[in-house]
Amino acid sequence: MSDPLRLGIAGLGTVGVGVVRIVQDHADMLAARTGRAISISAVSARSRDKDRGVDLSGYAWEDDPVALARRDDVDLFVELMGGSDGPAKAATEAALSVGKPVVTANKAMLAIHGQALAELAEANAAPLRFEAAVAGGIPVVKSLTEGLAGNAITRVSGVMNGTCNYILTRMESAGLPYDEVFAEAGALGYLEADPTLDVGGIDAGHKLAILSAIAFGTQVDFDGVQLQGIQQVSIDDIHRARDMGYRIKLLGEARRTPAGIEQSMRPTLVPADSPLGQLEGGTNMVVIEGDAVGQIVLRGAGAGEGPTASAVMGDVADIARGLTLPTFGQPATTLAPATRANAVTECAHYLRLLLRDEPGALARVATVLGQAGISIDRMRQYDHPGADAPVLIVTHPCAPLDLAQALRGVIDTGVVNGEPVALQIQNP
Amino acid sequence: MSDPLRLGIAGLGTVGVGVVRIVQDHADMLAARTGRAISISAVSARSRDKDRGVDLSGYAWEDDPVALARRDDVDLFVELMGGSDGPAKAATEAALSVGKPVVTANKAMLAIHGQALAELAEANAAPLRFEAAVAGGIPVVKSLTEGLAGNAITRVSGVMNGTCNYILTRMESAGLPYDEVFAEAGALGYLEADPTLDVGGIDAGHKLAILSAIAFGTQVDFDGVQLQGIQQVSIDDIHRARDMGYRIKLLGEARRTPAGIEQSMRPTLVPADSPLGQLEGGTNMVVIEGDAVGQIVLRGAGAGEGPTASAVMGDVADIARGLTLPTFGQPATTLAPATRANAVTECAHYLRLLLRDEPGALARVATVLGQAGISIDRMRQYDHPGADAPVLIVTHPCAPLDLAQALRGVIDTGVVNGEPVALQIQNP
Repeated sequence: MSDPLRLGIAGLGTVGVGVVRIVQDHADMLAARTGRAISISAVSARSRDKDRGVDLSGYAWEDDPVALARRDDVDLFVELMGGSDGPAKAATEAALSVGKPVVTANKAMLAIHGQALAELAEANAAPLRFEAAVAGGIPVVKSLTEGLAGNAITRVSGVMNGTCNYILTRMESAGLPYDEVFAEAGALGYLEADPTLDVGGIDAGHKLAILSAIAFGTQVDFDGVQLQGIQQVSIDDIHRARDMGYRIKLLGEARRTPAGIEQSMRPTLVPADSPLGQLEGGTNMVVIEGDAVGQIVLRGAGAGEGPTASAVMGDVADIARGLTLPTFGQPATTLAPATRANAVTECAHYLRLLLRDEPGALARVATVLGQAGISIDRMRQYDHPGADAPVLIVTHPCAPLDLAQALRGVIDTGVVNGEPVALQIQNP
Repeated sequence: MSDPLRLGIAGLGTVGVGVVRIVQDHADMLAARTGRAISISAVSARSRDKDRGVDLSGYAWEDDPVALARRDDVDLFVELMGGSDGPAKAATEAALSVGKPVVTANKAMLAIHGQALAELAEANAAPLRFEAAVAGGIPVVKSLTEGLAGNAITRVSGVMNGTCNYILTRMESAGLPYDEVFAEAGALGYLEADPTLDVGGIDAGHKLAILSAIAFGTQVDFDGVQLQGIQQVSIDDIHRARDMGYRIKLLGEARRTPAGIEQSMRPTLVPADSPLGQLEGGTNMVVIEGDAVGQIVLRGAGAGEGPTASAVMGDVADIARGLTLPTFGQPATTLAPATRANAVTECAHYLRLLLRDEPGALARVATVLGQAGISIDRMRQYDHPGADAPVLIVTHPCAPLDLAQALRGVIDTGVVNGEPVALQIQNP
């Protein structure tokens, strides 16, 4: 049996407590599997006095996570504080710069500073691992980086934010409007402190950017993700989508095209009877397409104490076993910046407009769309007790870029009230 | 960049050719990811003259796979011949005994000789990897052994034989009897040379035994798998199952119970609208349950050139990167023999009997089942133009062991013609 591996854990929220539990409850199993005793030397969190339901009395306490990362009795620094900058980043850098391995669940930090951190890690021969940052307990980072290493990956897509999926499925099942379900999710503690991170698609966008970098061997390019949140999805949209055989999901998609990498995180109509369409509540699903393997689908809990701690401990076990590789699968210095090719892959779209009650308004919209090359598959004007007439349009496949431009033309006609809502319809 | 990694490939069937293609087509990608050039030095197969659609002219040819495994210019031996014994085993042993890593897709060899081979591998510090042996391109061995290393695994289940799934789904969709679809599958080249390996559940049982060993940290125990093939499943069974909202799948299940490890591979009624129920054709699905992660579902192609070669190359890339661990996740010498606890987990059952046309026959069957403690949920006697009356019974949950004993009692009544068919119904 080799030397023990001693952890320092910064952040004792849900996930941190889950990690403590696994280390305490499964000491023998972990030692049998990794050939080393895995223990905890020290912990750090905002409040020392809070009762977290686990016994922390055997561990040293540090108020400062940077000091925790630097302790001599900490062999591996586990960063579970969150936040792209601040203490999480400072402590991660402190550990890496002295060659100490880091395991983190911090998608924001990886999505924004991943390249710099990977370079720091590799310059100091320190592993930086982050399975828990993407899709909770699903071993998707490992599958992409290692299991599918023989494939040129062509596409990674999926549902990666449990909160948004909860809101959308709850709206449908209870027939409730967005605002009401949003408030409910807040009361249940499902929302981040800044809820825009969830409902604005930012959190899911961070995850997609990380997967995209791993899949295509480019630098993380979060700014290159086309983001559209779920705030504009109305209960009417959900019902109309259902009538057409679809459900609306916050779908992420990273695709390698001849022109470059296309990344988007957008509410999308997916076939109701497809695996993605049937995904309920907080479950995540990631679909990987490779040239040799075809399509691989991975499904599991996307968040929560157990699943996220499971992912953290998978990384810890790898490091205990000496299984280490460059952060993004290949050396950070060999990763080229991603060439962006956004909004070019054609797909059908669902459009919702509010038309002013003027003669010829619908005809003008149709004309403008037609002139812009957007071909209409179906169009329907709904009853309108008020002044504005809701109109639903399904387009034939078109590039999102062209559609966005056409919609600016539609707005310029002056016959539309408010912003048109455009949702992509997943290609079969 | 480290030294190149030179492969020797024994077996140039579908999978071997797929591996050659990946090495040839993706040389740059593999070198970027693993930090080493991956090349092929020598190959071996039964026929040297066959045109396989790939250029083998740059590789040395060996008629004898053992000689191939021993070549000085072969750093890693890739075993793709198949067969539990014979040349595959001899060549694998030849490589391992000189400390040379082996990657294999051979489920039969692993299921039967896995423990001895793992001990040989570890005694010589040679990695022995086999991702391609289970569920084609799905990285399930890696997920279980590494990604989920922080979990006590409680259950592994799934559909792991594409041929059986093809036959069962085709019987249903075309309304054809078993014999006809079996012949069709043979004509399409879907069946092993000995088709019992497929339809008898043996091939799938090999895979389950391997996953069970990894999941529970025991020695592989293929003889402990309760095997039931699909030969007895009739088109009537499929239709009756469908009427009750089920589809019939060859379902494998390995479960850790307080009494020991329960392994079974049996035709099973699964809810038609569940992910397993919706699985079509040759697709595989593995469901893993762990105490921290909850349920993880992995889906992908279970066979074929690309998917299986993808799994082989994942293992090759790991070895190129120096990512090696004991064959079954923990040292083979620490694996205890599996304690068998078979047929103890209760579930509902579907029974089909042919009753002799005698007064009171149905009552006698019901009485014998009742006396054996088997409680009946539903029972139906069908029209019978001939002499025998088909009877369908759905039981309340009972242990398969108790049911098997009860069915012997039913046969002893003398009112039943032929063997009763008993299929388990998956617990929700």
